[in-house]
Amino acid sequence: MLMTLVDGQPDAGVPADDRGLNYGDGVFRTLAVRGGRVCWWPRQYSKLAADCAAIGIRAPEPAILLSDIHAIVSRLPECALRITVTRGSGGRGYARPAVARTRRIVSASPLPDYPAAWTSDGVAVRLCELRLSEQAALAGIKHLGRLENVLARAEWEDPEIAEGLLQDQAGCIIEGTRCNLFLVEKGALVTPDLSRCGVAGLTRDLVIEAAACHGLRCSVEPVARARLESADEAFLVNSLIGLWPIAAFGRKRWRKFTVAPLVRKWLDAIDNPAA
Amino acid sequence: MLMTLVDGQPDAGVPADDRGLNYGDGVFRTLAVRGGRVCWWPRQYSKLAADCAAIGIRAPEPAILLSDIHAIVSRLPECALRITVTRGSGGRGYARPAVARTRRIVSASPLPDYPAAWTSDGVAVRLCELRLSEQAALAGIKHLGRLENVLARAEWEDPEIAEGLLQDQAGCIIEGTRCNLFLVEKGALVTPDLSRCGVAGLTRDLVIEAAACHGLRCSVEPVARARLESADEAFLVNSLIGLWPIAAFGRKRWRKFTVAPLVRKWLDAIDNPAA
Repeated sequence: MLMTLVDGQPDAGVPADDRGLNYGDGVFRTLAVRGGRVCWWPRQYSKLAADCAAIGIRAPEPAILLSDIHAIVSRLPECALRITVTRGSGGRGYARPAVARTRRIVSASPLPDYPAAWTSDGVAVRLCELRLSEQAALAGIKHLGRLENVLARAEWEDPEIAEGLLQDQAGCIIEGTRCNLFLVEKGALVTPDLSRCGVAGLTRDLVIEAAACHGLRCSVEPVARARLESADEAFLVNSLIGLWPIAAFGRKRWRKFTVAPLVRKWLDAIDNPAA
Repeated sequence: MLMTLVDGQPDAGVPADDRGLNYGDGVFRTLAVRGGRVCWWPRQYSKLAADCAAIGIRAPEPAILLSDIHAIVSRLPECALRITVTRGSGGRGYARPAVARTRRIVSASPLPDYPAAWTSDGVAVRLCELRLSEQAALAGIKHLGRLENVLARAEWEDPEIAEGLLQDQAGCIIEGTRCNLFLVEKGALVTPDLSRCGVAGLTRDLVIEAAACHGLRCSVEPVARARLESADEAFLVNSLIGLWPIAAFGRKRWRKFTVAPLVRKWLDAIDNPAA
């Protein structure tokens, strides 16, 4: 990583009794920083705070996080920021400490250097064998326990495969290992239901909202493999990749993208207040 | 914590790019140290190594861990040891680093001070509302993503309740938040199946093996709530508590324990090679 602040301290280590480390007891977000602007900051903070609340962690005040972020962005105007919030230090055992002091870790990595063609011409994706476990109490939350994503990502090494799609236990496609999925069917959007598993990314919210603004119907529905294969278009979104159309999935090929570029234009045009 | 070694270094922090912290990408074990003896060390190491292998992490050599352990135990002959092994430092993203250097964290906490009556007279337990997610690829493994256990443990504060029982999605009882469960039915043992969720503790293995040695039938079967309530006895096991009979669950009470103390005697008598 290029730079890290642990509770505001440069290049400090994280105490070994941190509950994020010991139990996955925390949440995180990944934000793009471009030209010194922290993309979607207010919305990213809202999601971070909501995820903290969902697991009973007190979220750091936005001003405190912004102070860390500015210290990093003033030196690194182009980077991928990760904000991690853990329940802080605690003794042995799952019981939450009576007095827990939230720990914040803000770190910067280089922005990933994806091929430009992945944005313009689309990407090849595969179906992962690992199926997501279903936990309504944690569904949608970007918590620290991401070993399923690690195992799924380890299923392929071919650099031509940009992403792996994850199914739930019943075989419905939920998301990519690091992004959310949309289909285009007869001019309307469909995105998988994340009420039992999956991570609800901010860009997914923004696409849903942009669609509503522009009168494009968007529904949350189960997406079986066959449904994806017969979609008119499909695309992946997250804060770093933006929007990638899917060009290849198994033997299926898509070559014409009409709605995907339109949605990308909407995303680019939405007021994007920087930190 | 009383003392910690991170890769052998006293009181060092864990780098913020540790994948155990960032993704739950690691495993751990908890061991009792009594009178300077590390209980069940060879068996604990075997389970640690098996869990590492299950998620593709290279386990530290036993001699290296023993060196850390001895440095701690020579100063703290009575403690609860936690051994954490993570995939080590890595850049952003779920993909495993091409060259990952396993990180080991060995730390000591005070042995928990449970009421002696919990061992002799049994404990009161409750049923947790949170239901375990099911992930065959991770079932049984004591990996770092334990947020379900944290949330389940947060369901009660009554100090008279010693443990909460966790069900799977279908409502079968799988384990306690931090221990494994056995029933006694007509002189035979029954323990829940952990092939879809749950953590397979070492003491559970030892009970199964001791039962086989002593000609006591032990089967792995689904345990619905009603089955627990109608059991002749039930007990909980882990490395720190040893064995606790269950005395109360909902309105059900058990007052006579015959098999549970016998199994405890077997556990105590098994050759228990110290590190």
